[in-house]
Amino acid sequence: MSGTDGADLARFSINQMTVKQLSLPELADACGASGVTHVGLWREPVQAYGVEATARLMRDAGLTVTTLCRGGFLTAIDADARAAALADNRRAVDEAAALGTDTVVMVSGGLPAGSRDLRGARERIADALAALGPYAEAHGVRLAIEALHPMYASDRCVVSTLAQALDLAERFPACQVGVTVDAYHIWWDDTAPEQIARAGAGGRIHSFQLGDWTTPLPEGVLNGRGQIGDGAIDMREWLGHVTAAGYTGPIEVELFNERLWARDGREVLAETAARFLDHVLR
Amino acid sequence: MSGTDGADLARFSINQMTVKQLSLPELADACGASGVTHVGLWREPVQAYGVEATARLMRDAGLTVTTLCRGGFLTAIDADARAAALADNRRAVDEAAALGTDTVVMVSGGLPAGSRDLRGARERIADALAALGPYAEAHGVRLAIEALHPMYASDRCVVSTLAQALDLAERFPACQVGVTVDAYHIWWDDTAPEQIARAGAGGRIHSFQLGDWTTPLPEGVLNGRGQIGDGAIDMREWLGHVTAAGYTGPIEVELFNERLWARDGREVLAETAARFLDHVLR
Repeated sequence: MSGTDGADLARFSINQMTVKQLSLPELADACGASGVTHVGLWREPVQAYGVEATARLMRDAGLTVTTLCRGGFLTAIDADARAAALADNRRAVDEAAALGTDTVVMVSGGLPAGSRDLRGARERIADALAALGPYAEAHGVRLAIEALHPMYASDRCVVSTLAQALDLAERFPACQVGVTVDAYHIWWDDTAPEQIARAGAGGRIHSFQLGDWTTPLPEGVLNGRGQIGDGAIDMREWLGHVTAAGYTGPIEVELFNERLWARDGREVLAETAARFLDHVLR
Repeated sequence: MSGTDGADLARFSINQMTVKQLSLPELADACGASGVTHVGLWREPVQAYGVEATARLMRDAGLTVTTLCRGGFLTAIDADARAAALADNRRAVDEAAALGTDTVVMVSGGLPAGSRDLRGARERIADALAALGPYAEAHGVRLAIEALHPMYASDRCVVSTLAQALDLAERFPACQVGVTVDAYHIWWDDTAPEQIARAGAGGRIHSFQLGDWTTPLPEGVLNGRGQIGDGAIDMREWLGHVTAAGYTGPIEVELFNERLWARDGREVLAETAARFLDHVLR
């Protein structure tokens, strides 16, 4: 863990969730100390700190916001719930614009209680994107549909593969809707490389994220994403796929991990940057 | 929970793991009491009871063995480990033949320790099948590659989709190698129906299994398979897919579930048969 310099970290972005134990001012300070210039932010802590205040904090620290996580949750059947979800996603777009990022990561939502209709849920996402896409474009923001690992299909995200994400995104202009490519969620999928090529050809890779696959998965399977290099995913291979597809944007490391959260956040940030250099770039 | 009669349960098979708290004689007896005539067995309890003794017990109880679970674990790199795996799989074939079932369910194995090479692991499975297929055929047994849910890709089974399973199986004659279609593992996959059609067209649906998807998943994600009807999977839809593909064989319910194992096994068996009638057939 050494030799992190600005040039090597030029594409590295730390997703706020990876070091959620840090307050926003602490995050900004720790980024400065580690030579990190990109951050992916989450709506809840940003709202708690204030959107304008966060934008100012990031600007003053010389930090660029690569993504805002997250919009989505668009699978409700009930009309009131659907209207509320659309309104909330418009707010996410407003927040992204205020923060100066052009990308809102979209986690589409799971099956409504009692439903077994994956196809219907996916269609409702498309309906919602039709309403949200023009609003996002008008604010200079792109919606980046994230395929989540199939283990989340029932309760979090019915979009389980990059192909499904692209089937949705391609109904809309790329300046409105694209995809998030997150190796954690798609590493097992031997068709993902060709789907990354498809996404790149359409100019739809709006975000690229990394997290490592470690087992055993914890109860609920949410907070077991491994530090880069600790798991089964060949990070260079996935960077190679998006690079071959023409992607030159930020590389965001987003980990949900109770053990990382229990540690000193500054140390975790420095470690993550070092792992990025060792396992992604070199 | 009523009205279970022999005709309705004619295609129902109870996988031994669903009621693993029952000894083999208890299982045979409980099947008689519930009108169940098909069982899927597991190697470890069969070996403990004795293969020939189990075969006699099943025969005397009028039970047909639909599958033997499981062969596989063919991804090792080390030559000795590979030779041991091949020998063990030949024994599985011998045991299946002795039990009178024509199907060994194959769980292919995960990544070897420290490896990140999914493609290489999948190729080693093909190499092993080339050695095992003719042996199985000579004993009247078919190897049924099971795609396991992608959440098992690193530590249990690098074959994560039905398409991957068929890509492997189709290198060999259908009388040697086919697939197990288990709705629990593939329900999230919108391409699975066309893959089931592909499997049916090739005469490769050697086993059809059901389990329901319930959340939250437990730590390790192995023993959280829900009772039929408790979860997100539309059982009739998946039966419809295999039926459209020409499958007329047994429908095996295989649940790994700590809560079911903590209950009276006879009660769980009767409940499972009743759920099958309510959620799969009617």
